[in-house]
Amino acid sequence: MMKNPKCAFRLHAVVAAIGVLLAVPLAAQEVKLPPPEHTDPVALAIMKGFPPPAEKIVNLGNLLKYPNSRWGFQHIRELGPTANVWRGRAAISSLPEAARQLENVDFQSKDGQQISVEDWQKSTYTDGLLVLHRGHIVYQRYYSGMRPETPHALWSLSKSFTGLLARILIQDNKLAPHAKVSDYLPELAGTAWGDATVQQTLDMTTSAQYREVFSDPKSEIFPYLFAGGILPAPKDYSGPKTTYDFLKTVKKDGEHGNGFKYKSVDTEVIGWVLSRITGKSFAELVSDHIWSKIGAEEDAHVWVDPAGTVLSSIGLNATLRDLGRLGEALRMNGRINGSQAIPEAVVAELRKGADREKFKASGQNVRAGYSYHDFWWNPHDADGSFEAKGLNGQHIHINPKAELVIVKLSSHPIGDTSFTHELDRRAFAAIAKAVVQ
Amino acid sequence: MMKNPKCAFRLHAVVAAIGVLLAVPLAAQEVKLPPPEHTDPVALAIMKGFPPPAEKIVNLGNLLKYPNSRWGFQHIRELGPTANVWRGRAAISSLPEAARQLENVDFQSKDGQQISVEDWQKSTYTDGLLVLHRGHIVYQRYYSGMRPETPHALWSLSKSFTGLLARILIQDNKLAPHAKVSDYLPELAGTAWGDATVQQTLDMTTSAQYREVFSDPKSEIFPYLFAGGILPAPKDYSGPKTTYDFLKTVKKDGEHGNGFKYKSVDTEVIGWVLSRITGKSFAELVSDHIWSKIGAEEDAHVWVDPAGTVLSSIGLNATLRDLGRLGEALRMNGRINGSQAIPEAVVAELRKGADREKFKASGQNVRAGYSYHDFWWNPHDADGSFEAKGLNGQHIHINPKAELVIVKLSSHPIGDTSFTHELDRRAFAAIAKAVVQ
Repeated sequence: MMKNPKCAFRLHAVVAAIGVLLAVPLAAQEVKLPPPEHTDPVALAIMKGFPPPAEKIVNLGNLLKYPNSRWGFQHIRELGPTANVWRGRAAISSLPEAARQLENVDFQSKDGQQISVEDWQKSTYTDGLLVLHRGHIVYQRYYSGMRPETPHALWSLSKSFTGLLARILIQDNKLAPHAKVSDYLPELAGTAWGDATVQQTLDMTTSAQYREVFSDPKSEIFPYLFAGGILPAPKDYSGPKTTYDFLKTVKKDGEHGNGFKYKSVDTEVIGWVLSRITGKSFAELVSDHIWSKIGAEEDAHVWVDPAGTVLSSIGLNATLRDLGRLGEALRMNGRINGSQAIPEAVVAELRKGADREKFKASGQNVRAGYSYHDFWWNPHDADGSFEAKGLNGQHIHINPKAELVIVKLSSHPIGDTSFTHELDRRAFAAIAKAVVQ
Repeated sequence: MMKNPKCAFRLHAVVAAIGVLLAVPLAAQEVKLPPPEHTDPVALAIMKGFPPPAEKIVNLGNLLKYPNSRWGFQHIRELGPTANVWRGRAAISSLPEAARQLENVDFQSKDGQQISVEDWQKSTYTDGLLVLHRGHIVYQRYYSGMRPETPHALWSLSKSFTGLLARILIQDNKLAPHAKVSDYLPELAGTAWGDATVQQTLDMTTSAQYREVFSDPKSEIFPYLFAGGILPAPKDYSGPKTTYDFLKTVKKDGEHGNGFKYKSVDTEVIGWVLSRITGKSFAELVSDHIWSKIGAEEDAHVWVDPAGTVLSSIGLNATLRDLGRLGEALRMNGRINGSQAIPEAVVAELRKGADREKFKASGQNVRAGYSYHDFWWNPHDADGSFEAKGLNGQHIHINPKAELVIVKLSSHPIGDTSFTHELDRRAFAAIAKAVVQ
């Protein structure tokens, strides 16, 4: 795909720029992170001024160069094409406030340090944190210029929307989980998904010649991002120029169904299936089946590729409180604000999780005991928790036993959220303990 | 600016592609227009399918190739970067319905043909038409897949928002109409606006080496559009790459204040002044002073250039009914839904118009008797009408005597709205006569 050395050099430069941001997790002591208080985009005056000084201008080419992302994750739509996710005309579902002091709640980190909820937010580069207990806002904080109405990049947390939509269509008998993907998308007959089932794709147990290793410039995540227009392609890039065209190039790599392997492309394939079945874009489907049902306060929006395809794997942007509404609806088995926004059976299926044995194949040792089902993470803990997660620290954590929903949106310098996984889990547990007292 | 013949060729191709769309008006008989019923983007399946067939894909490069614009004008944000104009948290101002049969209202065209309001809508490639009488919706129609919640490209109708904002800041003593532009923007000291006043710029009586002649590929409108990222630049284009950088290249061309000459760049200069004074982008200013005040139903959005500058001259997109709300507020001297959304003195000034003698310099003979003030059109008619207008048939027509507001959003193949001016005026008059009966 890379024709000349210049081009390869450019790709290496791209990878170097996003290295800190997207790197496969390293032990904390190996990584030198910028002090969070030195990366505040407001204090740094990123994109401030008319015009901003040249060195403070953020564009797609430098979005992932830290700390540009601290501004950029709140301004994705100002950097490229997006489709609207309309909130509809329903009343906004209420989230009454019942503030509690949680910032001093403390807990022990893995290495025995005492850390407060406030310290945890700062050290994990939080842009917004929302804690709902029994449907009340008990805690909300905004940083980095973020406000209640600011949509924030969700990255792979978008996948959980796609999984939810797929399960809704399965429940509605419009999508057959055991059908082959190529029954819906004949274009994918000769690819990794030719004989994969919808459910294998939803659980990411397909086997594909596709690697999501950000530290390796030969990793197939890069042409996927170039094709989607999210990362500018090197000048001599000659690969696929649209997301669907990229998917058509991915080959099978052994048997499906054996082990979980995290792959953004599985979600794009499901997103494509959903659009093919319904004749609607991912943005329209999220509006119809989720956003307009839960009484969202603000429209959301999604990245659009050069052919107008609305990305279903990494493209969503939404506000903290609207994600709280979705979390609350799921905690309440689909009910919010007095109506059944999402079918109960759909939520029950999401909460089941999948085979934990198959999860082991992922190599995600930090999440030992988890499974991944319909693009939702399941820790199989005693509280019945389930979670949506995205790059750089995006979270919806739902703890049914504690009647708790936590939404955390961040711009952590390290992309892979497993880097802070252990700390986040301890923080969530400490908050759960505090709110039920 | 164009270095080699290949490049010039490309620019000619661009101009040819948009020729029909943006051409300086010709007599109707000289122009062969596509039958409106053959250009319906829904019937033509433009951008339909996952993916759409290659020949049905719209992007910035072919947006202006008719009939792509019929789809594109409802989907601008899916083609490039935009900033949100937040509606805020105020209640939506009500527009009660009191439907009337207006489609059969008829009137004579200039050449003596009898034409109905319905025919007029079709023949002028209407996407949406709203008629408000005494604040009630008496008529609304949507075409081309447009819906009440669909934002539509407003093009130069955006300018009237900028003029309104400027007048609000003047009223608030934050902007001095007789100050020099360069008092606010020292960067423009050596340019057309170096010694132009704010008011001269607001009334477009500045004199600049800048031509907005779409049929002439050497016209300076092209580098303005290339710099703003709205029209893809030819590969070898080496001119300014941001809107502000382009403004800095425009030289003075004689004395200011003598005659009206329509120039999008005057509005961009005022937009820049407003942002410099307030520290806020045009999108934030529209939200703060207009959108959140009138009880808009949906967010609007604005095109953003490669440096993150929110274009104040041609970039807005909004729904039919929200433009109706703005029109109604202005008709009511700034009041809507029981509150003073816009200061009364501001509206009084907009409605005054400017010197009709100076308007003659524009060469816009079809609009003889008009003036242009604070980026609003004023026909100086007996009804006290005033108007906002944009390329391809975007209109807010406010008729205080008839207690009438008409909003028309269109995707006419001919860009210059003066092409349909005579017909539109007659239709507006016929509707005014019908509603007051």
